[in-house]
Amino acid sequence: MEYSFAEQTKNFKSSAVRDILSVIQQGNVISFAGGLPSEDLFPLDEVQKAYEKVFASGKSSLQYGLTEGFTPLREAIQTKMDGKEIRTSLNNLLITTGSQQAIDLFSRVILSPGDVVLTEDPTYLSALQVFRSYGAHVVAVSSDENGMEYEDLVAKINEYQPKFIYIIPTFSNPDGKVWSTERRQQLLDLCYEHNVLILEDDPYGDIQFHERETYPPVASLDQKQSHVLYTSTFSKSVVPALRTGWVTGPTPIIKMMTQAKQMADLHSSSIDQQALYYLLRDFDLDGHIQLLRREYYQRMTIMRDCLNKLEPGVFTWKEPKGGMFMWVKGQKHLNTTTLLNNAVEKGVAFVPGAPFYVDHPEYNTFRLNFSHPTPENIKLGMDRLVDVLLNPVTN
Amino acid sequence: MEYSFAEQTKNFKSSAVRDILSVIQQGNVISFAGGLPSEDLFPLDEVQKAYEKVFASGKSSLQYGLTEGFTPLREAIQTKMDGKEIRTSLNNLLITTGSQQAIDLFSRVILSPGDVVLTEDPTYLSALQVFRSYGAHVVAVSSDENGMEYEDLVAKINEYQPKFIYIIPTFSNPDGKVWSTERRQQLLDLCYEHNVLILEDDPYGDIQFHERETYPPVASLDQKQSHVLYTSTFSKSVVPALRTGWVTGPTPIIKMMTQAKQMADLHSSSIDQQALYYLLRDFDLDGHIQLLRREYYQRMTIMRDCLNKLEPGVFTWKEPKGGMFMWVKGQKHLNTTTLLNNAVEKGVAFVPGAPFYVDHPEYNTFRLNFSHPTPENIKLGMDRLVDVLLNPVTN
Repeated sequence: MEYSFAEQTKNFKSSAVRDILSVIQQGNVISFAGGLPSEDLFPLDEVQKAYEKVFASGKSSLQYGLTEGFTPLREAIQTKMDGKEIRTSLNNLLITTGSQQAIDLFSRVILSPGDVVLTEDPTYLSALQVFRSYGAHVVAVSSDENGMEYEDLVAKINEYQPKFIYIIPTFSNPDGKVWSTERRQQLLDLCYEHNVLILEDDPYGDIQFHERETYPPVASLDQKQSHVLYTSTFSKSVVPALRTGWVTGPTPIIKMMTQAKQMADLHSSSIDQQALYYLLRDFDLDGHIQLLRREYYQRMTIMRDCLNKLEPGVFTWKEPKGGMFMWVKGQKHLNTTTLLNNAVEKGVAFVPGAPFYVDHPEYNTFRLNFSHPTPENIKLGMDRLVDVLLNPVTN
Repeated sequence: MEYSFAEQTKNFKSSAVRDILSVIQQGNVISFAGGLPSEDLFPLDEVQKAYEKVFASGKSSLQYGLTEGFTPLREAIQTKMDGKEIRTSLNNLLITTGSQQAIDLFSRVILSPGDVVLTEDPTYLSALQVFRSYGAHVVAVSSDENGMEYEDLVAKINEYQPKFIYIIPTFSNPDGKVWSTERRQQLLDLCYEHNVLILEDDPYGDIQFHERETYPPVASLDQKQSHVLYTSTFSKSVVPALRTGWVTGPTPIIKMMTQAKQMADLHSSSIDQQALYYLLRDFDLDGHIQLLRREYYQRMTIMRDCLNKLEPGVFTWKEPKGGMFMWVKGQKHLNTTTLLNNAVEKGVAFVPGAPFYVDHPEYNTFRLNFSHPTPENIKLGMDRLVDVLLNPVTN
């Protein structure tokens, strides 16, 4: 039988990165390709204790739950949001299966085919896939190291009248960038003026290397709570297997997303949500985040020091101020997809940068992850990579 | 700010049943309204042991997982499917967040606005909501006690050329009906002939009261594995809080649904999936299902015996052969929504039947759930309900 799929599936695209990852997960290749947190640092014992508390609370813990999420967990997240000066209420806080589901549900209730979404460039690949799967047209805004550039942003808003602007302003995936406070405020002011929504994706914000700097979420600047949807997750600060994220924003939109979630999966795992509640109650999550900051900073510096062995000017990168990624750009003629083959032969892998671009890929870029490999493997893998970069094989 | 939602949200509808349930969950009302399994029968100790095994397997159990699901769990489900003579491979088996997500992902990859879906009438309310949310037009097919009626089915297939036919052939929600084997085969033959897909929703099939009867899933008759998508869940046979279901069917469709799931939430909770794998490996699930069958049968007979106190002919119902629901029809003038107010005043609740109908509600129907209340409460609640039914207050 020939299957006739929905019109929108013509916009479906399998993740190029995922395809690359499946090739790499073999042998003794040291991989800087994925976007995984460090397993060594998972608080396994504390997680286990939290699940024990769920089961000790009795059989009703195993029953169906609310679509909005487990209420005590939502209250704990409110407290966490207060700490970031993002005001929430139980009416505008929805638990999701990771922040990926928040991106999907928001797109589902906002995007009609032909609508425009503005994004940074490069940006999170799976978000691009979601927007396009709903028939949206994604338009890239020019950015410099401080965030989207004002003039291009104004021009694109005027030209395209976008439904929303998607940003990862703090330690972005893939390029690790941080927006300046000024640019955050500028974006918000423009969105107020032109009635455009903002989807602020903040999975990495907690992993901040420099204690004294502040990176206010755009949602915290949105005093009216009218224009910003903010999503984050416990995948990076606790463990990914929990698949627990959340989203907050204007109440009418969260209500509509809750209806969409009811249709999508009724509710996320409530055993996990209850465990997370006990974990947040009894575990020093802030202390754990401090540990992650120190460890990831150390891993980043090892990677940075290896990259410093390269000839200045041939490869360029910026030291990230947090998050999990370094973004490297080679000279114009370089094709990092070809380079990846050489690298894998030498026992090291990265992700070519091209798939992260909206529509004009820069083939001379690649992304390195420093959170997952151990410090020893970063040293070993980077030595191999530097060797490949200094002595490229011409195919 | 006025928010401009996606076109399809005009088809969103909050669940009338859910709204009713939120009113009922108060005081000492005995509720037959929900669709919950019995908490008393949850295998709490075994579930707890299964989670302990996950954590004992080490920190890598807490890392990101595959979109398709945890491979050993998928293999265990293959064995379970073999027992129902549904052939599967790892290529066409996807883990979902409950069977609700399977219904949603299938609709997402198949339905374009204006497409037609044929359903039974009444049928599962949340499935209707999903189909309509993708802009589909839902058309009801006439049914008798053996399933969809052949002539109307042929007529509707010819008239509407539907994208698929949605059925709950074994102990349906809401009306507890079972299709005859003949009707199952007839439906499949028609779908072969007219190239129409079938979405077979089977959350209740395991809860079968009469050992010797057989109700072959339509998917088991689909020798070509070409036309039937089959979904089920562990929510009823193990515990709902796990939110773990699965779907199997033609490989190209499962592949497309996997792409949709990657965008929707990357993957379902992998802690839960691993726990379920250990539970299926080490726990006598078949024995537990036998226990559920005996217990739910006993609860159903208590409810049935109470209904038998009503005057024959005034209220009609059929004794269900499995599942969790009884479906009662009153005389033509009866409005069960009005009746619900009287009932709640007397300390008992049910769900009016109207919301389960596609477009011609029968206001004289209601659904009773016998799985969730204890036997004692079924007796007590049914005495109250029979009193209300025998002495209705005219408003």
